[in-house]
Amino acid sequence: MTMINGDWVMARVAELAKLSDEEGRLTRLFLSPAHQRGCAQVGDWMRAAGMHVRQDAIANVIGRYEGHGPHAPALIIGSHIDTVRDAGWYDGNLGVILGIAAVRRLHETGTHFPFAIEVIAFGDEENLRFPTSLLGSCALAGKLTPGELDAKDVSGISVREELMRWGLDPNSLADAARPKTDALAYIEVHIEQGPVLDRADLPLGIVTAINGATRWRVTLTGMAGHAGTVPMTMRQDALAGFAEITLAVEALGNSVPGLVATVGQVSARPGAANVIAGQVLFTIDTRHSDDDIRRTALDQLDGLLKDIASRRQLILAVERYYDAPAAPCDRHLQKAWADSLIRLGITVHHLASGAGHDAMALAGHWPMAMLFVRCDKGISHNPRESILAADADLALSVLCDFISHFDLAELDRDS
Amino acid sequence: MTMINGDWVMARVAELAKLSDEEGRLTRLFLSPAHQRGCAQVGDWMRAAGMHVRQDAIANVIGRYEGHGPHAPALIIGSHIDTVRDAGWYDGNLGVILGIAAVRRLHETGTHFPFAIEVIAFGDEENLRFPTSLLGSCALAGKLTPGELDAKDVSGISVREELMRWGLDPNSLADAARPKTDALAYIEVHIEQGPVLDRADLPLGIVTAINGATRWRVTLTGMAGHAGTVPMTMRQDALAGFAEITLAVEALGNSVPGLVATVGQVSARPGAANVIAGQVLFTIDTRHSDDDIRRTALDQLDGLLKDIASRRQLILAVERYYDAPAAPCDRHLQKAWADSLIRLGITVHHLASGAGHDAMALAGHWPMAMLFVRCDKGISHNPRESILAADADLALSVLCDFISHFDLAELDRDS
Repeated sequence: MTMINGDWVMARVAELAKLSDEEGRLTRLFLSPAHQRGCAQVGDWMRAAGMHVRQDAIANVIGRYEGHGPHAPALIIGSHIDTVRDAGWYDGNLGVILGIAAVRRLHETGTHFPFAIEVIAFGDEENLRFPTSLLGSCALAGKLTPGELDAKDVSGISVREELMRWGLDPNSLADAARPKTDALAYIEVHIEQGPVLDRADLPLGIVTAINGATRWRVTLTGMAGHAGTVPMTMRQDALAGFAEITLAVEALGNSVPGLVATVGQVSARPGAANVIAGQVLFTIDTRHSDDDIRRTALDQLDGLLKDIASRRQLILAVERYYDAPAAPCDRHLQKAWADSLIRLGITVHHLASGAGHDAMALAGHWPMAMLFVRCDKGISHNPRESILAADADLALSVLCDFISHFDLAELDRDS
Repeated sequence: MTMINGDWVMARVAELAKLSDEEGRLTRLFLSPAHQRGCAQVGDWMRAAGMHVRQDAIANVIGRYEGHGPHAPALIIGSHIDTVRDAGWYDGNLGVILGIAAVRRLHETGTHFPFAIEVIAFGDEENLRFPTSLLGSCALAGKLTPGELDAKDVSGISVREELMRWGLDPNSLADAARPKTDALAYIEVHIEQGPVLDRADLPLGIVTAINGATRWRVTLTGMAGHAGTVPMTMRQDALAGFAEITLAVEALGNSVPGLVATVGQVSARPGAANVIAGQVLFTIDTRHSDDDIRRTALDQLDGLLKDIASRRQLILAVERYYDAPAAPCDRHLQKAWADSLIRLGITVHHLASGAGHDAMALAGHWPMAMLFVRCDKGISHNPRESILAADADLALSVLCDFISHFDLAELDRDS
């Protein structure tokens, strides 16, 4: 009997990381040849774990481990196997392999439950190749419309064409949508992609919610002028206005617990050392686990921007180009994670997810919960992404404990 | 007899503006075909004003109007006829044409003085085509070394090659250098290129000095990170540090009378809405008429930058890539401008020049002075650059009055 532990998981992660669209680094774009090889590999591991494997119309790989009866509702354990360019190994892939590992442990002891377990490997979580987002998990939740399959990559190839090339039938997309009654809950284990657990010296964290996020594109227009000839008192310096706004954004982030507020992109026009900037374009990204708090903060920020622009005689234009509500994790499932952690002697720590995940698409459709695994220095989307084998082992133990204590009665209360 | 007045000057400025390297807008780069046609046109006007015209080895057009004797030292009136791309009509050109107009007035009444008058049309003031600066005026002051003629434009053509194409002899550059005894003073009339006179509702201003200037290129390095997953307290946000520095630069400019301090150029890396900036590159431009005050301000700024970087755990690198001392205008000549203004009933207003001029290159070689003409809203280096014909007329009257009262005895005290 194979020893299914953290080392087993780490070895499979390393194995999967070899399947790349680019030589010498991990790049596995949605519906790419490497993604296809990844699906085949994951399917093999699922079968070896006693699962029946199929691929749905949007290329999700679904492994099903039956419950006591043949049509039992499932506990779904998912994550994605597409990656960013020059990716780390763990983002997404870890969660899929942990799910397979947990089922394989059950399979090797012949353990079954009143519920089935499905492990799903999604694609299009990284929102990279096509101008789409979360196609795999959205299809499962029935949120995907056929028109989205016409989205094209930079080479002009559509999602639809690529699915057909894979031998999948884009017209049976509706079959990929799963009725609520098909499952009891959706859970996902994922690396944190942030530094909180690492700084706190904790291996695992229970996610409270996937933060809601709003992004603004701001244009601040003043008056360009000669840096030498226009006295300080006669300026309408758009870059100085930008600076004041950036510090206000930072101060707001610091003053509201749990809020992150970031100015990450800026361009100044005309952009010469000896010319006062006449126009500055920049973005503001704000996130919080509580939509009301985020909206109140945005209202406050809106007022601050207007005050700063008006005082400096700058023209302000704000465009809200991205707005996603928070996806709270199910309270009972959070409690179930905590119970498992306590049983295993692991410190319970709750944190919000600042990054988006497949679980976002499935929240609302099924009770949803996530467990975070610490990653070194919070580094992600980077080949330096790394985790400890010991943490993978703890995550696996927690996942197995969670499954074995998964309580249908509790879940019934949520539905 | 032609009426030589503001309208005459404005008509010649409009005529000269037709000579462009680009259709539909004024672009007259140093040693370009349009520059060559401009030199010919200016030479014609000089001859019509009773001047003997020659072109020196660096393509300066020099018109000489003799004094009482044949070898009298000259009062030199100069400015440039090269322009920026999509330029205004007045920058440089106005000063050359005003000089010609003043001499033509004298010529038409047969008036001569103990001193000669030379009007010079310089090139390479705008520092645009070649990686050189003020070649024309520097050659006159004997500050130009032959090696500078090897500077090439983007097409790989050197200054030397272009001069030879014009039929000039780059090897006789030394002849373009004028001994101090050749002239008594250098004066220049130029549009202000800033908003001070326009805001003060004054047509003319006496320049106290051409400001010294220092430019820094600053690199601020923090830690890039996910805008969603890194809590505010764990960030080393280079763009927030930049914002704090930019406001400190502005505050310093506001706190030191006469100082201008500008951040005009910025780039943030990686520069995405959802990524905390790991590195920001930007420039700081500082100028003042008093070098000691500027240096004290720069020392203070250096301390501020270090404090901000250190408090925010950012790595700071400062490169001083441009540093030019102030060029003070001669006191006696400033007094002579003021006397002329008073005689003509024009309010006397002194101001520093934030922009560089040919006069910078000649200060130190000869007593130097400048008179500024207001330009609408301070707009310059822009086709919207404009002045009033009435102001051109006043400037011409002041220049003629200045010449007719130009006192050799006063100048002797300066030399």
